[in-house]
Amino acid sequence: MRRINKMEASEVKSHNINISPNIKNDLKRVEEKLTQIVSSGDGRLAQSSLVILEAGGKRLRPALVLISGAMKHYDLEKLMSAAIAVELIHMASLVHDDIVDGAEMRRGVPTINFTWGSHMATATGDFLFATAFVLLSKLDNSRAMDIMSQTALDLSLGELQQMETAHSLAQTIDDYLTVIRNKTATLFSASCQLGGLISGASEEDIEALKIYGENLGMAFQIFDDLLDLSGEKRSLGKPIGVDLRDGTITMPILFALEETELNSHLCRVIIKGGNSTEDEMEKAIQIIHGTKALLRTREEANKYVEKAIDTLSSISSEETRRNLLSIGYFVVDRYC
Amino acid sequence: MRRINKMEASEVKSHNINISPNIKNDLKRVEEKLTQIVSSGDGRLAQSSLVILEAGGKRLRPALVLISGAMKHYDLEKLMSAAIAVELIHMASLVHDDIVDGAEMRRGVPTINFTWGSHMATATGDFLFATAFVLLSKLDNSRAMDIMSQTALDLSLGELQQMETAHSLAQTIDDYLTVIRNKTATLFSASCQLGGLISGASEEDIEALKIYGENLGMAFQIFDDLLDLSGEKRSLGKPIGVDLRDGTITMPILFALEETELNSHLCRVIIKGGNSTEDEMEKAIQIIHGTKALLRTREEANKYVEKAIDTLSSISSEETRRNLLSIGYFVVDRYC
Repeated sequence: MRRINKMEASEVKSHNINISPNIKNDLKRVEEKLTQIVSSGDGRLAQSSLVILEAGGKRLRPALVLISGAMKHYDLEKLMSAAIAVELIHMASLVHDDIVDGAEMRRGVPTINFTWGSHMATATGDFLFATAFVLLSKLDNSRAMDIMSQTALDLSLGELQQMETAHSLAQTIDDYLTVIRNKTATLFSASCQLGGLISGASEEDIEALKIYGENLGMAFQIFDDLLDLSGEKRSLGKPIGVDLRDGTITMPILFALEETELNSHLCRVIIKGGNSTEDEMEKAIQIIHGTKALLRTREEANKYVEKAIDTLSSISSEETRRNLLSIGYFVVDRYC
Repeated sequence: MRRINKMEASEVKSHNINISPNIKNDLKRVEEKLTQIVSSGDGRLAQSSLVILEAGGKRLRPALVLISGAMKHYDLEKLMSAAIAVELIHMASLVHDDIVDGAEMRRGVPTINFTWGSHMATATGDFLFATAFVLLSKLDNSRAMDIMSQTALDLSLGELQQMETAHSLAQTIDDYLTVIRNKTATLFSASCQLGGLISGASEEDIEALKIYGENLGMAFQIFDDLLDLSGEKRSLGKPIGVDLRDGTITMPILFALEETELNSHLCRVIIKGGNSTEDEMEKAIQIIHGTKALLRTREEANKYVEKAIDTLSSISSEETRRNLLSIGYFVVDRYC
């Protein structure tokens, strides 16, 4: 769970998702504008912020804003601001998470925390958060502001909960679900709601978008945590088991611990984290692969995606429904 | 400048300022509510947030909100939320600043950063920021939100500017003024504007509050930096020269460097910071005291307070004018 986007996301950007061409096109403009805003900061802030921006990302959250924003009146200017704001909040939370986790690498590049220290990472995250709220305040939509500030609060709670439980063998599936709800699902849900609100969607539609987004976010994170341990990454020549190396206990690891009744080798590797040898790590991964943990985790991710997709039937716009369906399939069907 | 509130503020709380009794009374309620909100967080967050809350503070920013909120219609419920929000933002910036500065002590108690590490300080600051924005969003006032998000942005820029210039001998008075404007004056100004906006004050009154707050904030920080080096602290048995020990170059130090044409001992102490011996530190302080630096700094603080007080003549409410005048006198006449 060393959180979302462990893959080099440039490879799996939103242009690989089957969504309407006009939205894909507008996402390119979001990207340009993001670069422009981030570069406009003070010299060193711009430098550090660009590191996290250029490291990539699928820009799924901006995509959700635009797609949901096509529900009724597609107000591109406002939707662009909202799309940029959600990505900035996401980036800010990643930068601060890297302090909390003491992470050295993210998306294949050294973290701001590792390169420049926690003082620079703190200031960069604060700058990104504040820039997002400046953009949001221009929307002149107090409900949107309420949703986003509550989301920022959930993200901060998630940061702390992860710190408290994610490395603990006493962690339960419920602890894990609480963390990923706060750290991932809430911002997915908020992105969908924000688009809906800006487009003037009905209350029913906004409620459906909220539920869709939350379930999509849960599925996304669970699948991301599965990818970290599954064979697909290895077959692409990428390292697997980053979470295990960090001592971060994710859903597949929890299932494996449960099935093996706390296999002592696996427990030792989790406790030792990065201090385990390659052989010890390899053996731990084999233990996990020898259980039904990966299969069960995929089933859980699928369950959440199904819940998300089920909600779509009550969404009134056919185009939005179709695009959100594509995102749903993408989320549990990406290999990187 | 190891920022605002180096003194143990419990000694100089707002009850020592000559302001209307009803506002003093409401400030007690703000204090109770602050404790309640901060304590309601997740266990460890509540614990760390309470440390910064209980370490004290004069609650000048909440006082400015309430005083300015009495301009026209005194809407206590909304003003309370705004007053709490500005103090939470202030607290959040202190917690994050302590990461940026690597500070070990604040207000006489160990910092969150020092006690629990930068990961806990990051999460605590994020929690306090987000809680503030949740409260602000409930005001349903997009202009207030615009002012506060812009203020959060200025605070983050100030964090970075301080990191870049505050320890550099190449720093100019303009660099120093830019940092304290972003780190202190903007939030003072925002607090005044917020109160005015909530009370439904006229545009002229809000503009006057804005200018008053900005100048008051500048004066406050300059005087705070003066107090750190003046004899008053020592006569009260408190350590002086905390900034010098941190290698943070404030206005009086800049003036002393200018007058002594970069006195080599003073420069060495600044560069060595905390690694200087007590004797070296003492000699550096004597060098500063031997110049006109303290006098010139006090004159600068007075100039800003005069500018703040000059603005009051255009404020329509007599009670607000009187209270803001008292705050002005307090800001450049406190010894702690």
